[in-house]
Amino acid sequence: MTERIYNFSAGPAALPLPVLEQAQQDLISLGDTGIGVLEHSHRSKAFLAVYEEAEALVRELASIPENYKVLFLQGGASSQFFMIPMNLLKKDQTADYLVTGSWSKKAVKEAKSFGNVNVACSSEDKNFSYIPEEVSLSENPAYVHFTSNNTIYGTEFATEPTVPAGVPLICDASSDIFSRPLDISKYGIVYAGAQKNLGPSGVTLVIIRDDLIEQGPTDIPTMLQYRTHSEAGSMYNTPPTFGIYVLGQVLRWLKEQGGLAAIQEKNQSKAGKLYGYLEQSKLFNATAAKQDRSLMNVTFVTGDADLDAQFIAKATAAGLDGLKGHRSVGGMRASIYNAFPEAGVDKLLEMMNQFEQEHAS
Amino acid sequence: MTERIYNFSAGPAALPLPVLEQAQQDLISLGDTGIGVLEHSHRSKAFLAVYEEAEALVRELASIPENYKVLFLQGGASSQFFMIPMNLLKKDQTADYLVTGSWSKKAVKEAKSFGNVNVACSSEDKNFSYIPEEVSLSENPAYVHFTSNNTIYGTEFATEPTVPAGVPLICDASSDIFSRPLDISKYGIVYAGAQKNLGPSGVTLVIIRDDLIEQGPTDIPTMLQYRTHSEAGSMYNTPPTFGIYVLGQVLRWLKEQGGLAAIQEKNQSKAGKLYGYLEQSKLFNATAAKQDRSLMNVTFVTGDADLDAQFIAKATAAGLDGLKGHRSVGGMRASIYNAFPEAGVDKLLEMMNQFEQEHAS
Repeated sequence: MTERIYNFSAGPAALPLPVLEQAQQDLISLGDTGIGVLEHSHRSKAFLAVYEEAEALVRELASIPENYKVLFLQGGASSQFFMIPMNLLKKDQTADYLVTGSWSKKAVKEAKSFGNVNVACSSEDKNFSYIPEEVSLSENPAYVHFTSNNTIYGTEFATEPTVPAGVPLICDASSDIFSRPLDISKYGIVYAGAQKNLGPSGVTLVIIRDDLIEQGPTDIPTMLQYRTHSEAGSMYNTPPTFGIYVLGQVLRWLKEQGGLAAIQEKNQSKAGKLYGYLEQSKLFNATAAKQDRSLMNVTFVTGDADLDAQFIAKATAAGLDGLKGHRSVGGMRASIYNAFPEAGVDKLLEMMNQFEQEHAS
Repeated sequence: MTERIYNFSAGPAALPLPVLEQAQQDLISLGDTGIGVLEHSHRSKAFLAVYEEAEALVRELASIPENYKVLFLQGGASSQFFMIPMNLLKKDQTADYLVTGSWSKKAVKEAKSFGNVNVACSSEDKNFSYIPEEVSLSENPAYVHFTSNNTIYGTEFATEPTVPAGVPLICDASSDIFSRPLDISKYGIVYAGAQKNLGPSGVTLVIIRDDLIEQGPTDIPTMLQYRTHSEAGSMYNTPPTFGIYVLGQVLRWLKEQGGLAAIQEKNQSKAGKLYGYLEQSKLFNATAAKQDRSLMNVTFVTGDADLDAQFIAKATAAGLDGLKGHRSVGGMRASIYNAFPEAGVDKLLEMMNQFEQEHAS
């Protein structure tokens, strides 16, 4: 069998090996049912058990209060970009958006079709390399939207922005969900495409407060109303059953790791090693502002595109895959989500050290 | 390892065992990449090869003309119910819908939000047990929509309805796609949730003629415009990579079976055995009109709900799972899609025969 390599992909991304091994078995027969997990009716007893476990683990790991629903939808975070304003922003209302990267910009674009958008802050002036400290909220926003981690630029909010009482805070947490504890009660909606920290692409986790579900109009398409999915327990139509299954397995693994506080420590340790090295390196530099650096995506450059390319080629040849940075930033990006092993970080550091010595001037 | 049983589920449904066995391997390492299929970036060379093979097989098996695009979307057929009128039906236009079951009714409901709907025919008067012969199209419909196979009621169009030249024919083929040859050039759009004949739930195949892609408005959400997905090769956002992978594997298997004409023969043979038995049975009766019977979903009853329940219990105990009919029809339903083995049909016939003898009056 082919040896597995270190996969620094920004998403879809590395998953825990025990989850994949369990999935191998369940593809042929889910438990002792004699029917594979892909083949089970979403209404079958066996799949309902899978579904209920996944939901229960989401609730348990994030201590989700009773007045929130957990939905498993399709269409990625990109579909939430329009579903949120379609349901929560009326033509004469204003929604506030904190713009800290490409994804927040896309979210703004979709919201503008439905109502007014106030860009409460933006770090575009410095290629999104930092999280703005100053946020100018509008008088009475329908909601405040932010992106907790910016995959491309390697920045992350240390804590959620402060909003006035009664204003729903909405977070696209696609790239750092469940990488650290979060206090759901501070949010109206937290949503995330699963393909970074939760499972495969094709399933979107939406944690939404009950009153927001009911606020949406009833004259929009049935599939685009949160109430449809809330009332039907995400089974108004056939849900992405395998995605939900894998997400449940990943959360089971996460619970075994000790839950969100424990995984945060591991993530701090992994990212800490890389940032620590970058701080003292004479060749490599981190691109994100020190206080805003992401625990999930570590972006760095040598300042010489040719040298970057050489490093990436060398790393790839040594079994460190997916290190090429996004074209908006260039250089390298090490995506080290929950499931990425610390041994892979150590291997990367070894490569960086060696490369630096070879290119010491 | 648990023995696999016969899975008559209406969807998600039985998949070919060789496909599942290949997926088992690829979960850990897709080919020799050292990265599992769930973990590959959708932009990686390895996944792009998977994607291109899936698209090429769709094109090859259905001889899709050059002026059609093949899209892999999310949200199921239920999302096409509103995307189609949102893109193709203007407020003052009329779209014609052939209503032959619950799913066509749902499609009508969504279309009504966007323009006028003419129900060109309906078989609701007899609980959708037949396909109407008479179809009253409106003068100048924006399009004509029909559901080629009705999973719940066990009926299927023998051939596509005739529409005037220039009127796009749109088909929800979720439950019989690629079960027989089809002439795509007669259609404007053919769409199908994958979870019956093509793969797992969570990916929707949309085959759409180029001119219809361009007709849609540009002021609707980006994700809801066909042009977005057409221009980006279904990669505007992260696609459901595993669903596309399995769909490609299923089509590879289908090609090995000899393609659409060959699988049609097998499907005729499987369904023919069941309908042949039902024709002469003194206990079991088919519920669908003879000339409109589906090759995919065979619905039948004893006429006595208690007896139906007894039969289902007996069959389940013998490893024939998922035979309970939908509550709208009652009795039994044998869903025997492409991947369902003929041996399972034989086993069912044996059970029916035995049960009939036990209950001969």
